[in-house]
Amino acid sequence: MVVRVSIIGASGYTGGELLRILALHKEVEVIAATSREYAGKPITHVHPHLRGFYGNMRFIEVNLDKIMEADVVFLSLPAGVSVNYVPKLLESGLRVVDLGPDYRLKSPEDYMRWYGFEHPQPDLLEKAVYGMPELHREEIARARLVASPGCNSTAAILSLIPAIKERLIDLDHIAVDMKVGSSEAGRNPTPGTHHPERENVIRPYEASGHRHVAEVEQELSKIAGRELRIAFVPHAVSSIRGALATSHTWLNSGVDEVRIVKAYASCYGKEPFIRIIRGPPVGYPDPKYVIGSNFADVGFAYDGRVGRAAFMAAIDNLMKGAAGQAVQAFNIMMGFDEREALMIPPLKPA
Amino acid sequence: MVVRVSIIGASGYTGGELLRILALHKEVEVIAATSREYAGKPITHVHPHLRGFYGNMRFIEVNLDKIMEADVVFLSLPAGVSVNYVPKLLESGLRVVDLGPDYRLKSPEDYMRWYGFEHPQPDLLEKAVYGMPELHREEIARARLVASPGCNSTAAILSLIPAIKERLIDLDHIAVDMKVGSSEAGRNPTPGTHHPERENVIRPYEASGHRHVAEVEQELSKIAGRELRIAFVPHAVSSIRGALATSHTWLNSGVDEVRIVKAYASCYGKEPFIRIIRGPPVGYPDPKYVIGSNFADVGFAYDGRVGRAAFMAAIDNLMKGAAGQAVQAFNIMMGFDEREALMIPPLKPA
Amino acid sequence: MVVRVSIIGASGYTGGELLRILALHKEVEVIAATSREYAGKPITHVHPHLRGFYGNMRFIEVNLDKIMEADVVFLSLPAGVSVNYVPKLLESGLRVVDLGPDYRLKSPEDYMRWYGFEHPQPDLLEKAVYGMPELHREEIARARLVASPGCNSTAAILSLIPAIKERLIDLDHIAVDMKVGSSEAGRNPTPGTHHPERENVIRPYEASGHRHVAEVEQELSKIAGRELRIAFVPHAVSSIRGALATSHTWLNSGVDEVRIVKAYASCYGKEPFIRIIRGPPVGYPDPKYVIGSNFADVGFAYDGRVGRAAFMAAIDNLMKGAAGQAVQAFNIMMGFDEREALMIPPLKPA
Amino acid sequence: MVVRVSIIGASGYTGGELLRILALHKEVEVIAATSREYAGKPITHVHPHLRGFYGNMRFIEVNLDKIMEADVVFLSLPAGVSVNYVPKLLESGLRVVDLGPDYRLKSPEDYMRWYGFEHPQPDLLEKAVYGMPELHREEIARARLVASPGCNSTAAILSLIPAIKERLIDLDHIAVDMKVGSSEAGRNPTPGTHHPERENVIRPYEASGHRHVAEVEQELSKIAGRELRIAFVPHAVSSIRGALATSHTWLNSGVDEVRIVKAYASCYGKEPFIRIIRGPPVGYPDPKYVIGSNFADVGFAYDGRVGRAAFMAAIDNLMKGAAGQAVQAFNIMMGFDEREALMIPPLKPA
Repeated sequence: MVVRVSIIGASGYTGGELLRILALHKEVEVIAATSREYAGKPITHVHPHLRGFYGNMRFIEVNLDKIMEADVVFLSLPAGVSVNYVPKLLESGLRVVDLGPDYRLKSPEDYMRWYGFEHPQPDLLEKAVYGMPELHREEIARARLVASPGCNSTAAILSLIPAIKERLIDLDHIAVDMKVGSSEAGRNPTPGTHHPERENVIRPYEASGHRHVAEVEQELSKIAGRELRIAFVPHAVSSIRGALATSHTWLNSGVDEVRIVKAYASCYGKEPFIRIIRGPPVGYPDPKYVIGSNFADVGFAYDGRVGRAAFMAAIDNLMKGAAGQAVQAFNIMMGFDEREALMIPPLKPA
Repeated sequence: MVVRVSIIGASGYTGGELLRILALHKEVEVIAATSREYAGKPITHVHPHLRGFYGNMRFIEVNLDKIMEADVVFLSLPAGVSVNYVPKLLESGLRVVDLGPDYRLKSPEDYMRWYGFEHPQPDLLEKAVYGMPELHREEIARARLVASPGCNSTAAILSLIPAIKERLIDLDHIAVDMKVGSSEAGRNPTPGTHHPERENVIRPYEASGHRHVAEVEQELSKIAGRELRIAFVPHAVSSIRGALATSHTWLNSGVDEVRIVKAYASCYGKEPFIRIIRGPPVGYPDPKYVIGSNFADVGFAYDGRVGRAAFMAAIDNLMKGAAGQAVQAFNIMMGFDEREALMIPPLKPA
Repeated sequence: MVVRVSIIGASGYTGGELLRILALHKEVEVIAATSREYAGKPITHVHPHLRGFYGNMRFIEVNLDKIMEADVVFLSLPAGVSVNYVPKLLESGLRVVDLGPDYRLKSPEDYMRWYGFEHPQPDLLEKAVYGMPELHREEIARARLVASPGCNSTAAILSLIPAIKERLIDLDHIAVDMKVGSSEAGRNPTPGTHHPERENVIRPYEASGHRHVAEVEQELSKIAGRELRIAFVPHAVSSIRGALATSHTWLNSGVDEVRIVKAYASCYGKEPFIRIIRGPPVGYPDPKYVIGSNFADVGFAYDGRVGRAAFMAAIDNLMKGAAGQAVQAFNIMMGFDEREALMIPPLKPA
Repeated sequence: MVVRVSIIGASGYTGGELLRILALHKEVEVIAATSREYAGKPITHVHPHLRGFYGNMRFIEVNLDKIMEADVVFLSLPAGVSVNYVPKLLESGLRVVDLGPDYRLKSPEDYMRWYGFEHPQPDLLEKAVYGMPELHREEIARARLVASPGCNSTAAILSLIPAIKERLIDLDHIAVDMKVGSSEAGRNPTPGTHHPERENVIRPYEASGHRHVAEVEQELSKIAGRELRIAFVPHAVSSIRGALATSHTWLNSGVDEVRIVKAYASCYGKEPFIRIIRGPPVGYPDPKYVIGSNFADVGFAYDGRVGRAAFMAAIDNLMKGAAGQAVQAFNIMMGFDEREALMIPPLKPA
């Protein structure tokens, strides 16, 4: 069986990454790829690396008639835009994977607070499933609408699941320090992403209210069984791809290294895309080793002297942090092998 | 049918890349991977990105009994080392793909001149096939011993095939200006590859006698039908992967852009891994767009005012410049689809 | 008056940086530069950028007779080596600036715990002055032996002085997240600093017991008036130069943004090399803007929602984090203008 | 005596670099810095690294009354803009250093051909002096209008002066292969300079008619005593700063290494900012070793086997390739020590 797929918003980095992955997917045919800016141009105009794949396929305008010839639609759009399309797609019986933030949060008020718009479909927020298989695999399998997580959020949440689920840490003092590569900011050039300005930065940004905190707190609070407030500071660093969450925590009394190891094994032992890192030679997760792949490498540093631990998760922000995770959820939703098109080894050195 | 493969010299970058590619190969099982330095250690000790592939496979010492349980052996060794193993492998009926230089040159004297050792098997030099499918596809299909080309050589030769084959240029003035990423120098740290020393260089090296010139002149002379002397200057630049050959030439009288375009089409129109680049948006080949893939992007700049043209070829030095091209030749030699395990889109942005 | 200076350990990055700075110093003549490895070779052999400065100066072996013709000696040596020279230098009446760790800690036991050797001169630990002018300017002015701080320590301490001195934060939950460039690891190549391995990393290292924690806790505890335990996780990122400390803290009740701003002004308002960063356009400190200079840029992110703040300090690890700060202390000790040879604007873009 | 200086176009990279250098100049006071885009904003808004220099100086609009309170005006403007200001500045008795191309070419027709505009002041083209001290030091000393060379041109010309002046090479086959860092393209972000797109490129551009060829051919033809046509292919590489010219040539018969060495000594032996590189340890010029400085490192590779040589010049494109060379010419024109404010050692590692 071939599943027909449309991609709305295919000229950005996440769109390009969806195209790259789906070119390898045995059960998928991409029938439409939209781009407002590049409609009419070949997809290789924007994604020259894809020459030799997809023949002469061209971007189209958002044309719902054409798009809805698909069975499944991926959307990769700025905040507040997916809401214009998703209801109609669902009504027509299609399944939807939205890579933007429009359906990630459960509380309509959060959209006003974090994104500055009133959500027009509060009912859909309940039906949407937060598309992180490690948390919601079974709901994803039954979902019509998957809200795929953000890249910072994915790393932050994956770093902390074992610590919170297994009650290892003081829940009142959690500081997530993120480091991300430049592709995280998307495809549009800005003064801050101009190469001479962006290379060699170690630049804190949105350090007191990054929007991704909302979904991090939502998902981790669910696990904790109480409301959490997370300190969250992202930093832009020189890489193109890669995101590392270093979550600084203080341990509950009696928690030692063995307890932590067990918590990881219990939470992640069977996950196909989580790799638990215990050195040597590489002691901790580093995005360097997951580039181009859907893996999340997780691990921790235990510091008995200070009674604390740092929990880490390393991902490729465009893969497990975006398109890869979306295809993983898509595979689950469609009943395919969860790993289809995704078991590509990371590229190294790169 | 599953082909059993051994890799001698599997801990370097080329070895790692072979492992990465072969993990995707439907017809291959890797039964042995050797490393003098890391024998006994898991392959993930050196190639942490390969966690999750190859189970708990460990490097072994060079043990020919074990190695020869394979059908085909890849060797990725320094100059002068493969000659110790290849005769025995061939005698035992195995096929061999050597990624080192030991069988690339046809003339035994060239080994003394360029590599400083007397070649112990001049007869094998005749039997070995230079493993560039674009030049020797049919011989590769019949070969027992493939000598896979070097990375600089691959880019240099591919840049010039149409110009020389189709008699477009003055053969007495050809200057190949190479730019290569840091992975080209292999896995062993040296003062010159130390990150603070290597990053941001635009560093000419071996600018008057790089060893790869020997195979470039050998193969291009064959095409030209006369002996060529090539000016060849490699430069180390900041990338990790990627090699670009810019071949500066002066055009024969009457040669215009149309003639050049035709020459490309005639030489490369049917090649599965050659992509002819004619802008826009990207006007010339750039290794940026082939990272992680086996593609060679080729193109040219025609400058009528000066009566010259620059012919370019861009590759990933570890793929089309090493492991990818070796697997391509292996596929041809074994009768597989030439593209098996290699039609992976490049990674971008990266 | 010209002060004669010797440098013991002049072939490393810190030694090279001392030479670079002192070439601009109006009151200094460098009379000797030692290097065990490169004795007899011109200093430009190791520091080719210094061609055109220092004439034909060559490295010498550690020859105390020659070295002690100086008035002041800088030492830039691995842990445990300076102790072999410093007592004799002091006895001979010279002044000493040690850029290594041998005299930074006050408690002899700390040397066994953090550095693994028994300190042979506990009495000198008392006399040595921790060479951070922002903390100990007056003692430096009277010192014979200055122990110049480490690069991570400098950033960490400078990030937290206002918060701790002005009682803004919960002292039991301080997590310092460091990001540093590759030059921080020094001049010797290792597998982990090989360019293809080091570029693009976001690599946590020594995440549960980095030696620099000892001096950070020592100096901050002094300010706090009680013993502190600091969570400290350094990360290697892709830059060559630069170190950023992001210190995650929770605020005492009633502390708001205004209080924090005042604390900065009070602690740093008159410091010649501290620049307080309040955006726009650049909102937070970023080492990008201090490259090549002795400045430390400091700033903070206040997050009222979570009741926390992140305090940041950005330095060039080889300048304010090493050679620049050492020369700053030297200037103070010798009664020169503190800014002599150091008021060079940062290089940007770089 | 303090010379008052105005800078028209001070918000770009070259303008920022002028400000950085002039902050160190003992004889200069900058009285005005213009920026159309940022008029009214502090110069540190655009050049945050300059915090602590120039007090609260703000950009102004181009206000000739204010600007002409200066003794000397530097202009750093796009092609075709300086011509609007220069005549009036000269008439008012000011001296002018123009860092743009408006007065570099001697032939008015060349402006139409290469820049697409008719030059309004052909007479000034004759009076302007091409501001390369190594070629025109004495004319610069007498000049009222200096046209400071472009960065590519500077490297290309400096690489070839000895070879052409001393009649070492075949003048009909000269191919200049340039590699330049990202700052060369200026301060305005474009899709091609967006960090994820620009990092890791080895990207040929304007490969058959870069505008800088015009001034290269003009100046080298003058030396050769006949008209030259140069093959010229620039490549964008990953560095931020740095430009390397590799000029591929074929040697006249009888020219050997000794002749070449003599030619360098004769042409450059007394130049304060030219460093002749003969390894070891670093065998050839590399922009890595001139970053942040006004030096041009020059050298060559002699290849007797092929009868050719590659002549190289490495510069910091913003320094010797722009602002540094402009200040060097300014020093000469004003009768200052040519090295004033420019004898700053390169930054390394960087």
